[in-house]
Amino acid sequence: MYTILVYDMNEKRVSKALKICRKYLNWVQNSVFEGEITYAKLEKLKVELGKLMNDDEDSVIIYTMRTDRYTDREIMGLEKGGEETII
Amino acid sequence: MYTILVYDMNEKRVSKALKICRKYLNWVQNSVFEGEITYAKLEKLKVELGKLMNDDEDSVIIYTMRTDRYTDREIMGLEKGGEETII
Repeated sequence: MYTILVYDMNEKRVSKALKICRKYLNWVQNSVFEGEITYAKLEKLKVELGKLMNDDEDSVIIYTMRTDRYTDREIMGLEKGGEETII
Repeated sequence: MYTILVYDMNEKRVSKALKICRKYLNWVQNSVFEGEITYAKLEKLKVELGKLMNDDEDSVIIYTMRTDRYTDREIMGLEKGGEETII
């Protein structure tokens, strides 16, 4: 299934969250990841993030698509994600 | 059509971007908005954001769905969006 994940983490945990998410999904913007992922792997990702997160400060939204791809993705401005950017 | 919008704006412009996006979509997380929107209104939103944005610093991703709703949205941790939160 196709997944979009957006996180809003406290600065202290953001680099760890980035590392976790990049194991499973492609990084497309500062706090946005997407990609094809199996149900089992998504569960693993959620467990890893759940352990890291402070539920009083952090927030993660996971969208999973019925179809394998959303209709369209449009990027305005800077493309911030990708392998070349180091945080 | 159903739209998810995520922005990553320089601090100087983030409150204006929030104001623009909330005119058209529902606020679901710090930098994430979603909702049903017509093609014409989405174009208006893009024009407004385009005028505000500095393309060297800011980034906006807009997903538009073929189906009227994505399959599933899961929120982990804090729900940061919504009417009650003032920025």
